[in-house]
Amino acid sequence: MGMGVAASLLRAGHEVCGCDLRAEARGEFAAVGGEAVARPDLLPPDLGALVLLVVNAAEADEALFGPAGAVNGLPPGTLVLGSVTMAPQAARALAARLSALGHLPLDAPVSGGPARAREGALSVMASGSAAAFAAAEPIFSAIAAKVWRLGEEPGVGSTVKMVNQLLAGVHIATAAEALAFGIRAGADPTMLFEVISASAGSSWMWQDRVPHILAGDDAPRSAVGIFVKDLGIVLEEARTLTFPLPLAAAAHQLFLAAAAAGHAGRDDAFVIRVWQALTGIPLPAKE
Amino acid sequence: MGMGVAASLLRAGHEVCGCDLRAEARGEFAAVGGEAVARPDLLPPDLGALVLLVVNAAEADEALFGPAGAVNGLPPGTLVLGSVTMAPQAARALAARLSALGHLPLDAPVSGGPARAREGALSVMASGSAAAFAAAEPIFSAIAAKVWRLGEEPGVGSTVKMVNQLLAGVHIATAAEALAFGIRAGADPTMLFEVISASAGSSWMWQDRVPHILAGDDAPRSAVGIFVKDLGIVLEEARTLTFPLPLAAAAHQLFLAAAAAGHAGRDDAFVIRVWQALTGIPLPAKE
Repeated sequence: MGMGVAASLLRAGHEVCGCDLRAEARGEFAAVGGEAVARPDLLPPDLGALVLLVVNAAEADEALFGPAGAVNGLPPGTLVLGSVTMAPQAARALAARLSALGHLPLDAPVSGGPARAREGALSVMASGSAAAFAAAEPIFSAIAAKVWRLGEEPGVGSTVKMVNQLLAGVHIATAAEALAFGIRAGADPTMLFEVISASAGSSWMWQDRVPHILAGDDAPRSAVGIFVKDLGIVLEEARTLTFPLPLAAAAHQLFLAAAAAGHAGRDDAFVIRVWQALTGIPLPAKE
Repeated sequence: MGMGVAASLLRAGHEVCGCDLRAEARGEFAAVGGEAVARPDLLPPDLGALVLLVVNAAEADEALFGPAGAVNGLPPGTLVLGSVTMAPQAARALAARLSALGHLPLDAPVSGGPARAREGALSVMASGSAAAFAAAEPIFSAIAAKVWRLGEEPGVGSTVKMVNQLLAGVHIATAAEALAFGIRAGADPTMLFEVISASAGSSWMWQDRVPHILAGDDAPRSAVGIFVKDLGIVLEEARTLTFPLPLAAAAHQLFLAAAAAGHAGRDDAFVIRVWQALTGIPLPAKE
């Protein structure tokens, strides 16, 4: 996601310095004309904004406040866009810490995946101060097709993103369960896809992910491991709130099972490998 | 569903005789100009086609082959449209029995609910012989917006419908789980509905059912008890096929829990009452 966002900002005419631990990511960004550094404390001293696209709250804390963190080098009043899927409580704590230092935090998780990030067409679910929204305007216009303005309270953006990930994760696992069952019952998977896509059983994820299975292509657009993480965040927050989520918990177990079977890095639709491993159903082969 | 289909056929100019055990249903059909009888063996002797819209395979068997069943009164070669959600194996057995008697069975479960039935705008997922499809043409044009022609083998229509019901049931329960969790986490449910409807977490059922919850209106368009039944059919067929369905099983338990709490006859979106009962979350009130 970070690469796509950085490239979209560059394309829109911004000066962009990327930061990634991985040399190949820095090389890839250099190849499209960007600069990149290996550590957050090596970022230029005159940043107008910092866009955080890391995997979780712990990485966000490390990138900002760790030994090689960026926060000490930020000019006063810097916009910090927290585009990280994290628990709302973590988003609120991060915003409070940044505000206390005089910066402008925006709780702004994104949705759409790496492909939409490259096109500058993400959805952003954002909450924070009017000043932070104003400062984020030129960034949003470069990276987002849709910005949801969800009020002044940090944490609302992360709450909405968390609820979205709950639904998205359960829907992917359910698409896999249903397609696998249909195959076992003797239905043609392409026919099933076509009929269900036009019926009451359809979902955004059914329409987006099932074609990966039909093509036999498990190259990761978004990986099984991401939902091990995201549904993990959802379930941790639910435990903190003492709230039962039986469907999210069952779906999480299925992504864990797929990861256990060696598929953590494969496309998330291939959570269907769990049923393949258990039942031996045939899946479409890659052409 | 039966009432809507009968009324649509009447509106299209067909002579229609309804059959329902309930006197109020017969009265309702008489009020729109139709005839109705209380028992299948009292149907007119010159039927051109029999459309079966009952709750399950046992009722279909009873209506056709029971002591007051219709089958003995049918003219040779009558089309029998099996628009019943049932296990594919039951659909195949029913078709075989009707074919052996010289009739024209069509495995033709429908989707869309009572509202679409009244409008003559159902979806039909059908499989059977070319002769049965030809005989069904005038009926389909009166009752359906879309007919899926899924080949000559009886059972395929029922398989597709079963897979659709698996997805639909899990999606309704997931919509309820996600909305309830969002409410507990402090999000405004109307805002959640709007953002998620335009995001990757959306589903046909999310968009159709969540408005019932937001309006606080649990009058049944389709009831909790229907998914206790339909996911029951799905799980029974899966057990017969020795196929594990962890998500469908979890969703079935939630509909059962809602039914246990007294909501079997209420709108299926109100499976959310399970979380309300457990956690005390506030739900929108009826205006």
